[in-house]
Amino acid sequence: MPDVDNAAPWRRCLELADARDTQGLETYVASLGTGEAVRAVLRLNLEDQEKVLTMLSPTDAADIIEDIPDEQAADLIESLEPKAAATIVREMLSDEQADLLGDLDSEDAEAILNEMEPEDANDARELAQYDDDVAGGLMVREYLSFPESAIVGDVLDDLSAHAEELEEHFKRYAYVVSSFGHLVGVIAVYDLVLSPRHKPLANVMVPALFTKPEVSLEELKNFFEGRSIIAVPVVDNHGRLLGVVRRDYVLEAIAERSDREMMRMRGIVGGDEIRALPTFTRMRRRLSWLSVNIVLNLIAASVIALYIDTLGAVIALAVFLPIISDMSGCTGNQAVAVSMRELALGIAKPSDALRVFRKELSVGLMNGFALGTLLGGVAWLWKGNVYLSLVVGGSLLLNTLIAVSIGGSVPLLLKRFGVDPALASDPILTTITDICGFFLVLSFAALMISKLT
Amino acid sequence: MPDVDNAAPWRRCLELADARDTQGLETYVASLGTGEAVRAVLRLNLEDQEKVLTMLSPTDAADIIEDIPDEQAADLIESLEPKAAATIVREMLSDEQADLLGDLDSEDAEAILNEMEPEDANDARELAQYDDDVAGGLMVREYLSFPESAIVGDVLDDLSAHAEELEEHFKRYAYVVSSFGHLVGVIAVYDLVLSPRHKPLANVMVPALFTKPEVSLEELKNFFEGRSIIAVPVVDNHGRLLGVVRRDYVLEAIAERSDREMMRMRGIVGGDEIRALPTFTRMRRRLSWLSVNIVLNLIAASVIALYIDTLGAVIALAVFLPIISDMSGCTGNQAVAVSMRELALGIAKPSDALRVFRKELSVGLMNGFALGTLLGGVAWLWKGNVYLSLVVGGSLLLNTLIAVSIGGSVPLLLKRFGVDPALASDPILTTITDICGFFLVLSFAALMISKLT
Repeated sequence: MPDVDNAAPWRRCLELADARDTQGLETYVASLGTGEAVRAVLRLNLEDQEKVLTMLSPTDAADIIEDIPDEQAADLIESLEPKAAATIVREMLSDEQADLLGDLDSEDAEAILNEMEPEDANDARELAQYDDDVAGGLMVREYLSFPESAIVGDVLDDLSAHAEELEEHFKRYAYVVSSFGHLVGVIAVYDLVLSPRHKPLANVMVPALFTKPEVSLEELKNFFEGRSIIAVPVVDNHGRLLGVVRRDYVLEAIAERSDREMMRMRGIVGGDEIRALPTFTRMRRRLSWLSVNIVLNLIAASVIALYIDTLGAVIALAVFLPIISDMSGCTGNQAVAVSMRELALGIAKPSDALRVFRKELSVGLMNGFALGTLLGGVAWLWKGNVYLSLVVGGSLLLNTLIAVSIGGSVPLLLKRFGVDPALASDPILTTITDICGFFLVLSFAALMISKLT
Repeated sequence: MPDVDNAAPWRRCLELADARDTQGLETYVASLGTGEAVRAVLRLNLEDQEKVLTMLSPTDAADIIEDIPDEQAADLIESLEPKAAATIVREMLSDEQADLLGDLDSEDAEAILNEMEPEDANDARELAQYDDDVAGGLMVREYLSFPESAIVGDVLDDLSAHAEELEEHFKRYAYVVSSFGHLVGVIAVYDLVLSPRHKPLANVMVPALFTKPEVSLEELKNFFEGRSIIAVPVVDNHGRLLGVVRRDYVLEAIAERSDREMMRMRGIVGGDEIRALPTFTRMRRRLSWLSVNIVLNLIAASVIALYIDTLGAVIALAVFLPIISDMSGCTGNQAVAVSMRELALGIAKPSDALRVFRKELSVGLMNGFALGTLLGGVAWLWKGNVYLSLVVGGSLLLNTLIAVSIGGSVPLLLKRFGVDPALASDPILTTITDICGFFLVLSFAALMISKLT
C-alpha cells in the first residue's frame, strides 16, 4: 500500500521540490502533462503548492495556474512574492490573466501589476474590469489583426516569420482594422492562403459579425449555437476591436458554471471547494450556509412547539413529522431541478412562473396521491386508526402539492428578483414545506383530536 | 399580456403549422436561428412538435433535432413515420445520428435504418454500437482523409471543388491513410496550403496522435487538456481510421453530463426532464425515485417508533427531531458536493475514501460543535433544562461528524462499486444520518430520562 501511494504524482512532485531538484521536477511535470500535473498540484496544501510552482519555469507554472479552479489559483498567486507572481502571470493568456487578477485582493493585484511591463499591466487592468462571464471577461487579446491596406502576400509572410511568437494566438481568422483600430472585416486564414497574393485585405475580407464586451455568457452561447464560426470579435461602442471570444472558451465557461451551480445548490457558498484548502477556510464557508439553515429550521420547528399539547396527546404523530418534512423536500427538489434545467436551456423565463406552477400541480396531484396513500396505509397498519391515516396521508398529499408548485416557481421568481436561484431555492423551499407540513399534520390532528386518542 | 404572449416564438410556429403555411414556417424558423427555434420546439407538446418538424425541410428539422436534449429527440423521432424520420435522420451529423438511433427502441431504429441507403445505414449501425460517452460515440465520420500517395496540389484542388459538400465536415486537419485505410499521418489544412504543391502527402504529413473507440469522456478531456490540437482521430485495433473526435464536442458532452448529474442528484432519475414531456411520464419517473425515498424514510422513522415511550415522556424532543434530521442532511450534502466535484476534477479517486473521511472529520468537528452549541442553547432558552440541551446539542454534534464523513466517502465508495453516485448518494446519506440522529437523541434521552422529566 505505501509503495503504490509513493508513486502518486503529487508525492513525487513534493519529493523533487523538497530535494531542490529543479531539473528533475521540470522533467517530471512535463512527463505528466498539464492535466495530471494540475491534479497533483491540487492535492498539495498551499505551502507545498508554492514550493513546487516557484521551482517550475514561469511558462509551465502559468499552464498549471490556468487550469486550476479560479479560487485556488488566486490563493496560490496571493501567497507568492509579487515579483515571482508577476513572472508567472505574464505568461498567462490574457483572459485567464484578467480572471485571475480580478479574483485577487486589489492590493495583491496592484503589487503584481507594478512588477509587469506598463503596457501589459494596462491591458490587464482594462480586461480585469469585466466580469468573468461576459464577453469582455471571456475574450482574449491574442488574435491576428492587420490594417485593411495590408497586402495578402505580406500578411502571409509576416505570419510565417512570426509563427513561434504567435504560438498561443488564435489563428483561425485574421481581423481587419482601419487605421483607427475599428473592426472593418474578417477573413479566415484558410481563405487568405487561397487569395491572390497581391490584393489588399480590404478586397478579400468579408464583413464581420461582432459582439459587445457586456454581452452575457448565455447570449454568447446562443450566438454560437447554430452558427459554424468558432470565434467572434468584441468591439467597443466606437467599433474599435478589443478582443476575440472563442467558441471553446464559451463552452468551457458554461461547463464550469454548471459545476459551480451544482456546488452552490448543495450549500458550498462560493461555488467551489476542494479538500486541499485550509480546514478553517472550508469550515467557515460551510458554516455560513449551515447557520442560515439552522435558523430557518428552528423557525419551522417552532410550529411543532405551538402544537405541543396535540402532539403529547397523539405521540405517534412525532414519527410522521420527519417523514413529511423529508418527502416534501424531495418532491420539491425535483421541481427545483427541472426549473433550473429549463432556465439553463432558456426554455423557461422568470415570467413563466405561473405556467410552471400549473404544470407542477398536475404532477404533484398524482404523486401526492400515491405518496399520501402509502403513508396513510402505513399509519393504518401501525395503529389501526383510520383518522390517523387521513391526517398523515392527507397532509402529505396537500404538502406535496405545495412543495412541487413552490419548488417549480421559486427558482424563476428568484431569478426575476436577481437572487441566485442555486443558492437560495433550497432553504426557501424546505422552510416553507416544513412549516406547511407541520402545520397541516398538527392542525388536522387538533381538529380530530377526539378520534385520535 | 395576451399580446406579448402571442409574439412567443413557439406560439407563432404553431400558428403557421396549423395554417399549413410551409413557406411561412420555414422563413420564420430561419429568422429565429437554431437556438431560439430549439427553445420554441421544446415548449410545444409532442403532437405539435411533430406537426412543426414535418413541415420544415429535413435539413432544418435535423438542425433542431441535433440541439434538442437526447431523450426528447428520441421521443419525437419515434412519433414520426419511419420514412419521414429517415429523411430527417439522414441529414444529421454522424455522431448525433448514432446517439439518436441508440436512444430509440430497437424496432423504431430498425424501421428508420431500413428507409436509409444501405451504406449509410451500415455506418449508422456501426456507430450506434458505442456508448454516447466514449470516443466511438463522440466521433464524427465527416472528416477529410486522403491516401498517402495523393499530391498536395490535387488535394487542395479537390477541397476547393467540393467545398459545398464538405460544409458540415471537420476541415482543420487532413488525415492521411494507407491503401488499407490505416491511419499513417496528419497534416493541418493550414500547413497543407503552405506546402509545395507537387509533393505527395506522405512527404509533408506528421505522425498523428490517435485514440481508441472505447476511450472514455474523462480520458478524452484529459487528453485535450494541455494539448493545443482540436481533434483526435479514432482508430480500431488494426489501426484503421474510424472517425474523428472534436475537442468542442468533448467539451459539450462534459457540460451536458454535469447537467444530467445535477438532475439525477435531485431525484430526476433519467437525468433529464422538461415540462413539455407528457404529465404521466414525468409523474411516473419522479415517483420511482420518491417511492424509494419514502420507504427509506419509513425505515429511519421506525427508530422513533421504538422510543415512543421516551418521546411521550419528553415531548419537547419531537420539536428537535426534524431539525437534527434536516441539518445532518445539509452538512452531509456539502461533503457529497465536494466529493462529486473532486471526482469530476479527477483529484479524488475511489481509493481516497479514507483520506476524505479524515479530512471531513476535522471540518465536521468544528461545524458540529458550532451547530450543537447553538441548538443546545436554544433548547436551554426554551425549557431551561441543561440536560435537554446536552441531549440535543450533543446529538447534533455527533451526527454532524457522521454526516460529513459518510457524505464525503459515500460517493467515492459508490463509484468504486460501479453505482452512480449522483443518484444514490443522497438517499443513502439521509437514511443513515436520520437513523443515527434519531437514535442518538432518543437513546441519550432514555439514559437521562430522570433528569429530563
